[in-house]
Amino acid sequence: MRKQLIAVMVILMTISTVSIAQTGSTTVKEDFKPSPTNQNGREYPMVNSEGRVRAKIFAPDANYVQLDIGAVKYDLVKDEEGFWIGESEPQDEGFHYYQLNIDGASVPDPGSKFFYGAGRWGSGVEVPAYDSEKYAFKNVPHGTVSEHIYYSEINEGMKRTFVYTPPGYEENTSKRYPVLYLQHGGGENEFGWSSQGKTNLIMDNLIAEGKAVPFIIVMSDGNWTMRRPPANNNDNDDEEAEERPRQWPPSGWADGFKNMLINEIIPMIDKKYRTISDQDHRAMAGLSMGGMQTRAITLPNSDVFSQVGMFSGGSISPDDVEANPEFKDNIDLLFISYGSRELGNGRGFGGDPKENTEKVGEMGINTHFYVSPETAHEWQSWRRSLYEFAQLAFQK
Amino acid sequence: MRKQLIAVMVILMTISTVSIAQTGSTTVKEDFKPSPTNQNGREYPMVNSEGRVRAKIFAPDANYVQLDIGAVKYDLVKDEEGFWIGESEPQDEGFHYYQLNIDGASVPDPGSKFFYGAGRWGSGVEVPAYDSEKYAFKNVPHGTVSEHIYYSEINEGMKRTFVYTPPGYEENTSKRYPVLYLQHGGGENEFGWSSQGKTNLIMDNLIAEGKAVPFIIVMSDGNWTMRRPPANNNDNDDEEAEERPRQWPPSGWADGFKNMLINEIIPMIDKKYRTISDQDHRAMAGLSMGGMQTRAITLPNSDVFSQVGMFSGGSISPDDVEANPEFKDNIDLLFISYGSRELGNGRGFGGDPKENTEKVGEMGINTHFYVSPETAHEWQSWRRSLYEFAQLAFQK
Repeated sequence: MRKQLIAVMVILMTISTVSIAQTGSTTVKEDFKPSPTNQNGREYPMVNSEGRVRAKIFAPDANYVQLDIGAVKYDLVKDEEGFWIGESEPQDEGFHYYQLNIDGASVPDPGSKFFYGAGRWGSGVEVPAYDSEKYAFKNVPHGTVSEHIYYSEINEGMKRTFVYTPPGYEENTSKRYPVLYLQHGGGENEFGWSSQGKTNLIMDNLIAEGKAVPFIIVMSDGNWTMRRPPANNNDNDDEEAEERPRQWPPSGWADGFKNMLINEIIPMIDKKYRTISDQDHRAMAGLSMGGMQTRAITLPNSDVFSQVGMFSGGSISPDDVEANPEFKDNIDLLFISYGSRELGNGRGFGGDPKENTEKVGEMGINTHFYVSPETAHEWQSWRRSLYEFAQLAFQK
Repeated sequence: MRKQLIAVMVILMTISTVSIAQTGSTTVKEDFKPSPTNQNGREYPMVNSEGRVRAKIFAPDANYVQLDIGAVKYDLVKDEEGFWIGESEPQDEGFHYYQLNIDGASVPDPGSKFFYGAGRWGSGVEVPAYDSEKYAFKNVPHGTVSEHIYYSEINEGMKRTFVYTPPGYEENTSKRYPVLYLQHGGGENEFGWSSQGKTNLIMDNLIAEGKAVPFIIVMSDGNWTMRRPPANNNDNDDEEAEERPRQWPPSGWADGFKNMLINEIIPMIDKKYRTISDQDHRAMAGLSMGGMQTRAITLPNSDVFSQVGMFSGGSISPDDVEANPEFKDNIDLLFISYGSRELGNGRGFGGDPKENTEKVGEMGINTHFYVSPETAHEWQSWRRSLYEFAQLAFQK
């Protein structure tokens, strides 16, 4: 009887250990530090050296609280003071969107700053990476990120564009610069590259080390805004027009945005900034949907752009090159990249990207294929892709 | 007996009506519209013509949900699908911070964009104002808001400054401009004026109507960052130094910030921008703590600034003027303002602001006293104050 009791206790303890392992203690390395994406002075969320994210929130009357990250919901455990705490399995290095689930309500974590992705402003957390130095804030000369809002005649409404100018732009008033048009992905917006993308810090650091030519980067809203025609008795002005329900791919994602980019954004930038406004000094790159836009826009418009980057957003095939005969002669750089975890799982969007890039290289185009180690369809892949692309661009 | 039953029912219905009135139906005008501060495509929160804010969130397993706005928590009511809905009493016109309370957890509303105030990034809602046109987005020429990050040698860490340049700044490359240094309040940061403050839209509209001289506006982080000395066995670098617990007034709020403003920020701006870098063309203004900083900085430094604005942040007394003898001759404009609901309730910070301003005016200083109608210590008072101040500044 006593032996049986001990056996039951051991089984219970084992079950308990397994269950705790998911949310808590035994197997977890206790070297958690606050995420640099936290709000000023907030301790949580924290991240440990394994990449586990630990969340904590005061919710004394809640029935359950979960940390929702990487498409998995991890149960938090309540302490005697009413705080819920617990952590995730290890996450990839870099930036991740997440949220909390309190009794079925998906809400932002009040400990985090807010980032736009997956179609909403929400919480984000940063897992330290082996190469975090690339985008660390350092005591080096810093560029400027400028926000332009304007009325788009083509898309009939307010649009926003961010412009990175390299260190020295304001002081060297006679120098002119090449320009990269750099696009976000689907479900994201024009804030992504200069916020979680760390574009300005990546460029400041590369330029300080002499690894990249200083150039201007233009980060625009690549979403085409569909508007419902106003109802007859509707006295709302155009600003208040509602958007159509979401669809994929979003209507206007290629042709609508191409029209805005070539006929509104580029002329505005060439007017407001000291650009070198010719094809030799104009690049386009983008991530995911932005990579697909880059492909759709640069293939038939290689007289406008000489350098092309597609990050986790497909590739250019030999057929593409043959169908656009000027592309081969016009393009000085074709850069294709993916996260290592994306490859071999159907992420190719029309052919194996490595194979396509090799074949296109054999046709005489200056190609580069880059794989971000141990990352997926996520910002760490795209930060690294920009870091690589920026060192190749405008070197001719 | 039957009469008694009816009487009881009437009483019960009355109680029920009163109780519903707080959160719902009978007395509330059903003309709610989504707040312009909402996330893209989100219907809630909504605001009606009385200024009531209606929140709605899906929280099927919650025990209670409250809308926490204006220091009052309003109970929401659950519908059969698991959505909680309800609204507040009427709020003042303009912008308000708020949050949701789900089973004791204070969290941002996922329907809202995020704004920094009260020491945290959180939800905001906009009650339409009689004068919303002042800060509406219109199809007029728009200025640019530029973000500068830099290493502050004085405060030993990263600091951020936003700079508004008026429409035409980039194109008119030989024109030079006056500069206003414009500060946020306590618990806020350098994002406030260009986000909920609507500085760029207010200026774009004033300039388009010819009501203000175009000038540059510099919006800096006015918080002095206290850092703990690193522990002996602490290998964190300076970036990760923790902040000291909050105190009021924050240490360094006057002298520390004065040092940064005069010795780092103004020289940086005069180097990077086409300023008219003399006292005649340099103004300082601020709200609340920023107004108190303006007073503390401009009184002894009237050789640096010629125009002074204090919004809900105290006033300049005859004693102040006598103690700083150069102030009277140096200052071309002294603008003091408050929200009407702030006056007469001890908000003066050292003397009745209207009386002080009149007396200082009698001493020969060009003074203006402005009262924002039916607003309190809140952003609508400060938007209107900037709108008035900007029409008076640099008119000499």
